Amino acid sequence: MAESPFARTPEPPYVAVLFSSRRTPGDAGYAAAAERMASLARTQPGFLGLESARGADGFGITVSYWRSEADALAWKAHVEHLPVQARGRQGWYAGYELRVARVGRARRRRRAD
Amino acid sequence: MAESPFARTPEPPYVAVLFSSRRTPGDAGYAAAAERMASLARTQPGFLGLESARGADGFGITVSYWRSEADALAWKAHVEHLPVQARGRQGWYAGYELRVARVGRARRRRRAD
Repeated sequence: MAESPFARTPEPPYVAVLFSSRRTPGDAGYAAAAERMASLARTQPGFLGLESARGADGFGITVSYWRSEADALAWKAHVEHLPVQARGRQGWYAGYELRVARVGRARRRRRAD
Repeated sequence: MAESPFARTPEPPYVAVLFSSRRTPGDAGYAAAAERMASLARTQPGFLGLESARGADGFGITVSYWRSEADALAWKAHVEHLPVQARGRQGWYAGYELRVARVGRARRRRRAD
């Protein structure tokens, strides 16, 4: 069975970083970089999970979950993450919005996972 | 130009309701109901915006933004929304997770919108 796309987050509270973006056409190294960043994020202190979806129109939402805002900020400042953020601004994204939020309540339901 | 997929949210703080879900195969009335719910949500008190993305694998993330948690809860309890939630549990979703969060910081960048 394929890996679940759901993040297995603990009981709240925790921090969610919501990244909404619209991709420019073409790959230009995006897919490989996104995969590398997802793998690297999973090894960072305080990482709790990652969920991501992108439609055929190029609009996508990625949410990463962290134990604390300090952990999320440390990932933002990671030496390998910074140049990838710059490439995002310079080419991969026609636009994006980043929101940092504190999750206070969560409820899940799975039929088969 | 097509309508922007980005929610035009005000300065934080505000509330985000994150709904991550995996669809079961087939439409079964889902697309029409989702469109109706999005239209109806936009008319509710405290509604600030809606963003949604779903990939070809059926996994999607929808985030609705609200002025307050009370406004988000009122939408959850809306008389036309409740039976649609039940249909979601009974058929449209193989699984979902709902998280309620308070957005404290936001940053945006648009090249063309």
